[in-house]
This record gives sequence, C-alpha cells and structure tokens, in this order.
Amino acid sequence: MYRKILMRMRMRMRMMNATRKVVVGWAKEYKRYLSTTTTNQILLSPPLVSVDLPEIWGSTSTLYHHHPSQSPVSHAKIINGKSIAEEITSRVASNVKRMKESIGKVPGLAVILVGQRRDSLTYVRNKIKACEEAGIKSVVAEFPDSCAEEDIMTSLSKFNEDPSVHGILVQLPLPEHLDEEKILNLVSLEKDVDGFHPINMGNLSMRGREPLFVPCTPKGCLELLLRSGVEIVGKKAVVIGRSNIVGLPIALLLQRHHATVTIVHACTKNPERITCEADIVVTAAGVPSLIRSSWLKPGAVVIDVGTCPVEDPSAEYGYRLVGDVCYEEALSIVSAVTPVPGGVGPMTIAMLLCNTLDSAKRLYGFT
Amino acid sequence: MYRKILMRMRMRMRMMNATRKVVVGWAKEYKRYLSTTTTNQILLSPPLVSVDLPEIWGSTSTLYHHHPSQSPVSHAKIINGKSIAEEITSRVASNVKRMKESIGKVPGLAVILVGQRRDSLTYVRNKIKACEEAGIKSVVAEFPDSCAEEDIMTSLSKFNEDPSVHGILVQLPLPEHLDEEKILNLVSLEKDVDGFHPINMGNLSMRGREPLFVPCTPKGCLELLLRSGVEIVGKKAVVIGRSNIVGLPIALLLQRHHATVTIVHACTKNPERITCEADIVVTAAGVPSLIRSSWLKPGAVVIDVGTCPVEDPSAEYGYRLVGDVCYEEALSIVSAVTPVPGGVGPMTIAMLLCNTLDSAKRLYGFT
Repeated sequence: MYRKILMRMRMRMRMMNATRKVVVGWAKEYKRYLSTTTTNQILLSPPLVSVDLPEIWGSTSTLYHHHPSQSPVSHAKIINGKSIAEEITSRVASNVKRMKESIGKVPGLAVILVGQRRDSLTYVRNKIKACEEAGIKSVVAEFPDSCAEEDIMTSLSKFNEDPSVHGILVQLPLPEHLDEEKILNLVSLEKDVDGFHPINMGNLSMRGREPLFVPCTPKGCLELLLRSGVEIVGKKAVVIGRSNIVGLPIALLLQRHHATVTIVHACTKNPERITCEADIVVTAAGVPSLIRSSWLKPGAVVIDVGTCPVEDPSAEYGYRLVGDVCYEEALSIVSAVTPVPGGVGPMTIAMLLCNTLDSAKRLYGFT
Repeated sequence: MYRKILMRMRMRMRMMNATRKVVVGWAKEYKRYLSTTTTNQILLSPPLVSVDLPEIWGSTSTLYHHHPSQSPVSHAKIINGKSIAEEITSRVASNVKRMKESIGKVPGLAVILVGQRRDSLTYVRNKIKACEEAGIKSVVAEFPDSCAEEDIMTSLSKFNEDPSVHGILVQLPLPEHLDEEKILNLVSLEKDVDGFHPINMGNLSMRGREPLFVPCTPKGCLELLLRSGVEIVGKKAVVIGRSNIVGLPIALLLQRHHATVTIVHACTKNPERITCEADIVVTAAGVPSLIRSSWLKPGAVVIDVGTCPVEDPSAEYGYRLVGDVCYEEALSIVSAVTPVPGGVGPMTIAMLLCNTLDSAKRLYGFT
C-alpha cells in the first residue's frame, strides 16, 4: 500500500510538470493572441475557454512578472471609450457589408421597449442609431407601461422564431408588474445578445464553459482593459457593485481572465480599504463621486461604469452626467481611467453590435 | 429642468429612506429566520431570494455591528460536521417516513458511475448507504471506463423520465473521452440535485433568482457556518480555489449572503496576505497543509474542504487524509475550524439527501 501511494505521488509530480509546460505554453499563446488580430477579428477578447488554466498551486506564480506598486503618476492615460467604440463599430460595419455581399444577409436586432422612461428611450434610440450606422437591421416593439405580460411574451416568441432576427434585447428595467425573470428566460438562448439568460450567466461563471454571449457592458470593460494593454492575470481587481447586469458578470469575466477578484457592495465594511489595494478597479455603484483619491492605489487602472445625472446650473440642461469616480482626483493618482461620459457608455453599444453580428455569423456559419 | 432634477433627487432620498426601513426589517427577519426552525425545516439556510438586499451605499453599514479583530483564542471551536450531518440525516429520514405514510411515496436518487476510480467508488458507496439510512430509494447505473457517450445519454434520459427518480447524480470526474458538459446539461433541471446545470449555476449567481438546487458541498459549508452562529453579512470571506463544483459556487453563495468575497486561486500573487485578512476562510485547493498559521487572522472561522491522502507509515493503511489547513497550527489562532475528516465531507452527503428530498417534495407538492 505504501509503495502504491508513493507511486501515485510520483505520477502526480510528473503530471504537474507536464501541466506546467502546458501553462507556460498557454501563457505564451495568450500573449500572442492578444498581440495579433486577424482581419475578421473585431475584439481582442479571446474565447473564455481558451484562457482557462489548470490550477497548479504555487507553480504558476513565477510565470507572471510582479510589477511593484508604481509611484504616483502625473499623467494618467485617459481611456477613450468613444474612439475605441467607433473603431469597433466601423469594423462591425465592414463585416456586415462583407456578409451582405457574400451571402445576401445582414444581422438583425429586435428591441422590446416597455413604457416611457426617458433614460430607456434614450438608450434604445442610441442603440437603433448605432445599428443603422453599422448596417444592422433593427426593429423596436414598443409597449405601454400598463401592458400585459402576455403581449410581451407573444412579441418575444415571434422574434424568437423570426429568422431575420439574430439578437433580441429587452430594455431594462421593466415596470414593476412584469416578471423580469420570466420574460428574460423566454429569450431564445441563441439570440440573447444581452447575455442575461441564466444559461449564459452560468456558462460565464464556470471554467471550461463558453457562454454564447457575454453581457455588453462587462464585455466592453474587458475590451477597454485589453486594448489599453492592462495585464489582468494575477492582478488584484475590485469590482464595486454586484448588479446582475454589470457588477456580477464583470467580476466573473475578470475571474475567468485570472485576476484575483473581490466584489465590494453596499454591505461591505470599509470598502475604501479594500479598493485602495486594487490594481484594477471597475466601479458600477451608480453613486456620484463615491470613489475619492483615498480609494485608489497609485498606478491603478480604473474603469468607471457609473453614470448619474447631478444638478449643475452652469450646464446646458441644468445637469451633467458624472461617474462613480472623482475624476479630477483620480487623474493625479491612477495610471489609466475612463471618463464619464465617453468611456464605458459607447462600448456597451459597440458590444451589442458585436454580439448581434456574432449571432448572425454563427447562424449562417459565416466567418 | 433644474427643478425637475431636484424633485427627482428628493424623491430618490425618500425612496432610499423607505428602502432603509425595508433593510432594517429584512435584517431582523433574517436573524429571526436563522434562530427558528419549524418541524419541517431541515436546514437553516433560507431561500436565496429571501436574503437579497437592496443596494443602498453608505446607509446599510450601520446595520451591521463591526466586531474588531479578536485577539488570539486558545480554544478554537471544532465544527463537528459529522454530528451535524447525522442530525440533518435523521431529520431527512423522519421527513421521508412522513412522506411515505402520508402519500405512499419515497424520494429516489439515481447515480451514474463510469469506470472504476477508487475514490469515486467510495463516494458512491457512501451516498447509497446514506440514502438507505434515510429511507431514500437509490439506483446506480454502472458503466465501464470505455463506454460510449450514447450509453450514458440513454441511461440519463431514462432517469429523466422515470417518475420514481427525483434526483440524478453523475459521479465526477468522468473519463477523458466523455463530454462532461454535454452529459451534465442533459440532466433534467428538476432532478439536478448536484446543482451543476448551468441554469442552476446562473440562478445561484444572480440576485433575485433562486436555483432549484445549490451544489451539495457549498451548501454544506454554508450550513456549517450558519449552525455555528457565524455572522456572514458584511464579513470578509476568502474562498481558496475556484473549481466549478466547490470554490466558485461557495463564493457565489457567500456573496448572496452579503459577505465581501475574494476568490484566491493558483494565479493569485501572495494569497497569504489576502487570506490573513479574512473573517471567514473556505479552502478547497486540495493542497495538503497549504494554509499555515500565517495565513489566518486571529478569530477567523475556517471551513476546510480539502481532502488529500498523504503517506503516513504509522497509519493503518499507510496513509491518512489531510485538509488544506495545518490543523494544529490553526487551532491556536482561529475561533472555529472544521476537522478533516469529519468536517465538510459528511455534510456533502447530507446535503445530497436534502436536495433529493426537496426535489420529491416539490414534485408531489408535499410540505
């Protein structure tokens, strides 16, 4: 028995060494992947399973260089989400054009809009406009605030069956009387371009699994990080906020990319002390100027998903949009930060276009 | 416009105050829930949606008392998983008896076992034995290592349709040539007592959603914490390991219970420094004695999921089982710790019985 155990342990050691080689190979491959994009490749983010890593404790740490805390930087890089989103949108447009020329089809997006919320109206208008610019066909089904759940379900079912619709989006939040879970679960998995279906969320969270769609805002945040050359593997990331549509999926995504992730939320004690140790901060609390300079580690990279209107008599409409981060304070401390507006916002829409294009490509087997 | 914004802000403040009352009410309700169990209530853990909290930044923190780091304790509480599991199993047994007497049905568990792995054989044997003790009907479908995927799929489909089977369990790991994802996804959602179906995992991760089943080991860990009177809300929790079957779901579960969760994994730099700040440590790395005393905060609560055979000529079979934690070292520092064996292990099986019973209760509408 003793000899058997010993043999098993030796075998395990051999396996670990073999796996270590795999990891080294993977790390090289990952870097190579991120540094090259083919013509048809719009995003930098690779399939999630391709970045999965075997868990070898204590042996992989040497693979990743440790960058000691950087000293305060005077010139933070402003991550220009608007121009990155424009670049992506134009690549989507040329893909759509190529698809149309080659197979006579274009991607189609269907939007379900309930009620007259001003913010929702604005978001939907922007999405439709972006679709038009990229050559994606779009259709909006509008319902009054007081509509019956069944009407939405019927409309959804039609879109699910419509072969010219490749993406379906239910603009959230829905009025209180509607069962959001029930409605979202009805969206065909293959058309769930918002990535909120529990199967997509489950596959986003589990190693070895690939969701058909990653939610747009988290995907946009990741793309901003990758395009800004931010190393994620082994970095301490703090996600502020744990909503189903932003905080949670971005945490899962960073985790799949091998960051050490902490989610800070409203019940967290002393969130400042936790956040100020993070190399990467993604904040989606929706609390204007929550993140002061004391929350940030010198040299950190900050992605600000927050967008809140605050009164400002000097602004054109009496208010302006601000993020979660005290932008001016952050500029003197961090190495890179997204502005609000012009940071994450445009990326969300660009990712929606990507997801819709990907869905159509998948359906038609078009590469 | 200015006035409108102001009005909206005032409205928001009023809503926040209202929500705060809800939170206070919820916190009381939660405590009440945890301190009482009805006759039919086997577990302490409440439905997840019942513990969801509105996210009110900066206003909930006063709800939760901050306990400053405790000084080193000389007498750590040993969390006796074996006796807790026995108590739960006996309550399951009396529920099963009551079900049989009242509607003439008993819960049924089907196990799919592929190959001759010794550990898998042992686990399955223990599960079947526990079922027998609790009066749960069980059936094992055994397949040779070299079996075809189709054979398993056929067997699974039969179990899915069999009305006397309320829980289906595919013993993992499967041999390399089988597609684990494809096989697990075929398990009927209503019978997925292991909770590994992506829909269950997605619903575990999302606020406002309730998975039909929570994976057994994570559920057992939570139950140990609750039964040991460990406060989770607002506590710093570190989960070591990010496997789909333990690390990830326990992190999601603790997060749903409002801990501030960090997942530490093989790519984490300096995991010791992160772990030593945690109030709650759940470790599932599978690395014997990884967690030394320097990794632990005085007064922390430690749940050790690791189980590894290490050679020990003095032991009966030449080896003994050890966890991830240097148990002797931990005893002098932590406030509570689970032993290996006799900690989490028995709880996993007890939770499997609970999930199978719950599934049958759900099907028959039996309370």
